[in-house]
Amino acid sequence: MSLLVVGTVAFDTIETPFGKADMALGGSGTYISVSASYFIKDINLISIIGYDFPEKELEFLKSKNVDISGIEKIKDKKTFYWHGKYHFDMNSRDTLVTDLNVLTVFNPNVPEKFRKPDYLCLGNIDPTIQKALIEQVEKPKLVMCDTMNFWIESMKPQLLETLKLVDILLINDSEARELTGDYNLVTAAKSIMAMGPKIVVIKKGENGALLFKDNYVFFAPAFPLEKVFDPTGAGDTFAGGFMGWIAKTNDYSVQNMKLAMIYGSAMASLVVEEFSVDNLRNLTEDKIMARFKEFKSLTEF
Amino acid sequence: MSLLVVGTVAFDTIETPFGKADMALGGSGTYISVSASYFIKDINLISIIGYDFPEKELEFLKSKNVDISGIEKIKDKKTFYWHGKYHFDMNSRDTLVTDLNVLTVFNPNVPEKFRKPDYLCLGNIDPTIQKALIEQVEKPKLVMCDTMNFWIESMKPQLLETLKLVDILLINDSEARELTGDYNLVTAAKSIMAMGPKIVVIKKGENGALLFKDNYVFFAPAFPLEKVFDPTGAGDTFAGGFMGWIAKTNDYSVQNMKLAMIYGSAMASLVVEEFSVDNLRNLTEDKIMARFKEFKSLTEF
Repeated sequence: MSLLVVGTVAFDTIETPFGKADMALGGSGTYISVSASYFIKDINLISIIGYDFPEKELEFLKSKNVDISGIEKIKDKKTFYWHGKYHFDMNSRDTLVTDLNVLTVFNPNVPEKFRKPDYLCLGNIDPTIQKALIEQVEKPKLVMCDTMNFWIESMKPQLLETLKLVDILLINDSEARELTGDYNLVTAAKSIMAMGPKIVVIKKGENGALLFKDNYVFFAPAFPLEKVFDPTGAGDTFAGGFMGWIAKTNDYSVQNMKLAMIYGSAMASLVVEEFSVDNLRNLTEDKIMARFKEFKSLTEF
Repeated sequence: MSLLVVGTVAFDTIETPFGKADMALGGSGTYISVSASYFIKDINLISIIGYDFPEKELEFLKSKNVDISGIEKIKDKKTFYWHGKYHFDMNSRDTLVTDLNVLTVFNPNVPEKFRKPDYLCLGNIDPTIQKALIEQVEKPKLVMCDTMNFWIESMKPQLLETLKLVDILLINDSEARELTGDYNLVTAAKSIMAMGPKIVVIKKGENGALLFKDNYVFFAPAFPLEKVFDPTGAGDTFAGGFMGWIAKTNDYSVQNMKLAMIYGSAMASLVVEEFSVDNLRNLTEDKIMARFKEFKSLTEF
């Protein structure tokens, strides 16, 4: 099965109470693709980079079976850059710098060979671009879409149009509240389902994630770690693990989505143990399965 | 099996975004005992009330098989009174009034007939009183103890002495952080285990609860409810369900404590659906089992 991923490929400078990573590999497209690569081998990434993006990181993506021919390179602009600093609690952060750079001209055209994806995962980007992408491909079996408070605040009408075409919305708790005006997550999820998505996954960071479909709810905890080194990309890594598992099994029943929630959570719990995507560079299936089993032990009664 | 409970019996005035309850039945001893009463029939409550406490609420406790002969009545003082107001998010609250009243003379003497409890549950009270109580009884099979930030801040040395005699400490996340000076809950739990308790249960409110023993961790989610009416007493209700289940089964293996965590969480999820202890007044076993099964469905994969 093939997974088409759309998202950013970026440089991140990350400060946490445990140290600093300068110009590290980041971006939603990167985290989603690399996480999914541990489940499937047919991953196509649509993104954009600048003249300053190093060849060796493109090689890294290729080594993970990510087809990078959909990554556009802009000769006179720099790669998207984000600099953030996490607070002591590791749950909140300040954005110190956001240089959009190439993102100002991101208007992707899906290459012909990517136009029949089995599964589509839209990272957090401008909802009008998300919609244009959905319309460029033959209807996939499942479309997952992420978003953020910035789009809810600045482009809500456009976001609502996009949501009509989406099967699963991935959103964090405060964003779900902002999108619906409803503090209660159960009723907020119901409001979102009325906007289009049949399934809503609400991410609660260190407090896990909830999946809603009709009146059914499933909860996946976050793994209680002794060391959370860098939470950057945890949500995207979750999305990559989730969609990677769904694509690998080609089964989007609710029963199988529970496993996707756990695999997504397992991948997210692994990525935060190191800076950037470092812990996903040389992960083994054994490590992933060991973490999966730890989730079983954590919640089974 | 018998459960000895020590805690307050109080009047609460509670304001939430959904309404107000005036002079409602409250107190940790009340919530713990009533919750446990759905599991066992031999419950002995040590507490103190004032001249203004209504006979009908004592009758209510008796109707739940709570032996109230350990509740001291003070003729010239009023019952402990608390008035709180919850914020819109229902997770944070302001205390508007705390009238200690009878609590200023609370120095309980365990009646002779209560001195051989199988299980002991110490609600959140002055740690020197908790310690005196443990020393008054023949060593129970398991001693559970709750505490709060007030005692951590004002009586830490005394609290540390009490913890040496306790098997399970029940504490919320911010209090665990305050007690240990460690933000990470996994390492905070390890620090607490080094203080005496073999088991630490960290309550995270609407984000569930974690049980730690040695290197083992179990997680019980909070139930995602459409309606949280009044969170008062949720932690005490959890404690009552937990210890009620342990006492009913007379099994304090880790395996059985997982079930205790779920029964505790089920009882807590039920009590918050109404004001005060109202939803625990006429609960049925069917309702508890239905909620227990909903927890299975929520987390099983």
